Amino acid sequence: MNPAVDPKRTVAELKELRRLTSDDNGAQRVAFTETWVAARDWLRGKLDGLPAEVHADEAGNLWATLKGRSEKALLIGGHMDSVPNGGWLDGCLNVLAGVEILRRISAEFAGRPPVTVRLVDWADEEGARFGKSLFGSSACAGTLEMGEARALKDKDGIGLPDALKRVGIDFEAVKNSGRELGQAAAYLELHIEQGPVLLDLGLPLGAVLGTFGVERHSVTFVGQAAHSGSTPMNRRRDAFLAAARMAPEVYGIAERNGGVCTIGSCTTRPGIVTSVVEECTITLDQRHLDPSALARMLDEARESAGRFAAEGNVGVSWDRIWRIEPVAFDAALVGLCEESIRETCGGAHRLPSGPLHDAAEVSRAGVPTAMMFVQSLGGISHNRIEDTLEEHLELSVRAFDRLASKAVARISGGR
Amino acid sequence: MNPAVDPKRTVAELKELRRLTSDDNGAQRVAFTETWVAARDWLRGKLDGLPAEVHADEAGNLWATLKGRSEKALLIGGHMDSVPNGGWLDGCLNVLAGVEILRRISAEFAGRPPVTVRLVDWADEEGARFGKSLFGSSACAGTLEMGEARALKDKDGIGLPDALKRVGIDFEAVKNSGRELGQAAAYLELHIEQGPVLLDLGLPLGAVLGTFGVERHSVTFVGQAAHSGSTPMNRRRDAFLAAARMAPEVYGIAERNGGVCTIGSCTTRPGIVTSVVEECTITLDQRHLDPSALARMLDEARESAGRFAAEGNVGVSWDRIWRIEPVAFDAALVGLCEESIRETCGGAHRLPSGPLHDAAEVSRAGVPTAMMFVQSLGGISHNRIEDTLEEHLELSVRAFDRLASKAVARISGGR
Repeated sequence: MNPAVDPKRTVAELKELRRLTSDDNGAQRVAFTETWVAARDWLRGKLDGLPAEVHADEAGNLWATLKGRSEKALLIGGHMDSVPNGGWLDGCLNVLAGVEILRRISAEFAGRPPVTVRLVDWADEEGARFGKSLFGSSACAGTLEMGEARALKDKDGIGLPDALKRVGIDFEAVKNSGRELGQAAAYLELHIEQGPVLLDLGLPLGAVLGTFGVERHSVTFVGQAAHSGSTPMNRRRDAFLAAARMAPEVYGIAERNGGVCTIGSCTTRPGIVTSVVEECTITLDQRHLDPSALARMLDEARESAGRFAAEGNVGVSWDRIWRIEPVAFDAALVGLCEESIRETCGGAHRLPSGPLHDAAEVSRAGVPTAMMFVQSLGGISHNRIEDTLEEHLELSVRAFDRLASKAVARISGGR
Repeated sequence: MNPAVDPKRTVAELKELRRLTSDDNGAQRVAFTETWVAARDWLRGKLDGLPAEVHADEAGNLWATLKGRSEKALLIGGHMDSVPNGGWLDGCLNVLAGVEILRRISAEFAGRPPVTVRLVDWADEEGARFGKSLFGSSACAGTLEMGEARALKDKDGIGLPDALKRVGIDFEAVKNSGRELGQAAAYLELHIEQGPVLLDLGLPLGAVLGTFGVERHSVTFVGQAAHSGSTPMNRRRDAFLAAARMAPEVYGIAERNGGVCTIGSCTTRPGIVTSVVEECTITLDQRHLDPSALARMLDEARESAGRFAAEGNVGVSWDRIWRIEPVAFDAALVGLCEESIRETCGGAHRLPSGPLHDAAEVSRAGVPTAMMFVQSLGGISHNRIEDTLEEHLELSVRAFDRLASKAVARISGGR
């Protein structure tokens, strides 16, 4: 009988990690904290039994390498860090499924697989402390904006470079980690969906098409404060009215274009019960997998904001908060991912990822990339109630292992 | 030639008061402050030349009485106090027009008019310090809620009773001032409109029908926070969407019913760019002159909030912040007011008052009441740029004096 993964061991190890690094409020593996260091030490212990070389790179990413007959490498990635009060699966499911796959491949090929297989635990995926996610993977991919990152401070005023120095990382050298991708031929990542799509479809697993591009703006409407009793309705220049009309509109924009749009906050000034709103600011977050559709969604939002402003005789201005291009994953690997899912549990679905993932950074660095999603109960994550059925976790390890085998075959076949 | 009012003197006195009690940010006659006391002392000086008895009542209202052949009294009211950084006309135009009318009546009847004529300067109309307007007039009218007022504190934590004690007023006795209304047969008040209606109509003056009733609520919608990237539009329970749909709706409600409705503030939680809004609270202020129309506006708002909540799969709850019944002024006096305006400047218009005024409290005490409005430039008040054309101020003094004559005739005629 061929060696096989033991998905129940992965679930057991996830529970062991939870006992070690959570409290009553959830997981506390915030990057660069003591709890995160403890989680990593625990991970190193799990890797001890494997004939793998283990080291941390200049950006703090931890690599375990099972050297193969070819230097061309299959990468499997995840992240041990969590948000504060996080869930038990986000990031570490990926890593521990990878550990299990290293065990299986090592056993199957007596420690010497046809291609090199590497597990990477990215540093600070969540960006919980400095508000900048994908730190380790963007440093490695070369996309990290050094000037911006150098200036980041946590809520206590400690700068990112100082915080890194305390864990032995030289901020100015983090991009040297890029050499780790030198022989990378494919990158795979398993992740909980963190949304309700697979749950709604009744499917355990899905193949991820890529990560959404994001346009993030604040939109400010400026009218005229006026007494709520003495100002006739037809004389008002009501900034809230114009902003409020955007809410149903962005639902229409998202529906027409097949993306998602969110007004996440609304502030009003003077913001008192007895005055018409003079100034109203909303945040608008728009996401789409297709760059032209994303641009169209933004155009349509600008057009409607301008129209509502003109109709209400108020001004409107836009400030971009952030943007990122969509990342489409490698078509061949996405195909293998879907195939692996079908072979494991019958039904499969292709879906975009709303949240960003380290996989997006690796893909931007030019490495063929794919991700697999496993269903999230309630579509909830970044919360202690984040959960997935254990049978789905086990299916995900089996299907992901199957995908790893297909990727190894593809790389060693030179395709 | 019969004695007549001198409206230019009123304008000159308003400017004199402005020099005395304003700074670069506007009028600073906040009730119970030194500047307010100085304004009152100045007013007493203006009254010195008249054969009038002057005293303050138990609530701090200042009365100047020109004793007539009958004890039945015509009251003319206003307030010297202003908001911080207020305008030069709000409240004190009323008082100084009244001073001018006392002068004219005193001269015409050699100090002994057919009925008693009294000027009252109400204490703390604006409620700027303790957030409770119409203090002096509501105490006098007997409508002041003693328990509520006793608990009021200013921003430094000083209670209203303590603040009153410092200016010689015993809070527990303020309602004894009610005796001042014993012989009141009519109450008249001149005020700047504080809105744009007369400006839009191109009319200097209007007859006020009464003061709006007010329904003031906070309305909270509760949905579900969800990731802005991973949550499909059709899965969202978006509290902001439901609240935002109220904005155009309240305009429709106001238009259909002929009142005014204002959403003055909107707050969102968690209120971050990456999450669907879980909780959204708006304030709703609805005003109408007709009690049944006001009740209908509230019903319609409740119905639509419930409908938008149901359609968005979110909850909704209402909290009443405050309410007051509409006050309709005395039909005969409103008729005399309109007549006086037509005789003075041709065109007249009847309009409700959106803001509250001391006149509403006097009316609630059962005294036949009317108010006259003079046009406000830009519809702006409670601000240093509050202004009215001097020729309109002069017309207002003439027309208001004419109304006072008609009221004296009406009272002395026993009607």
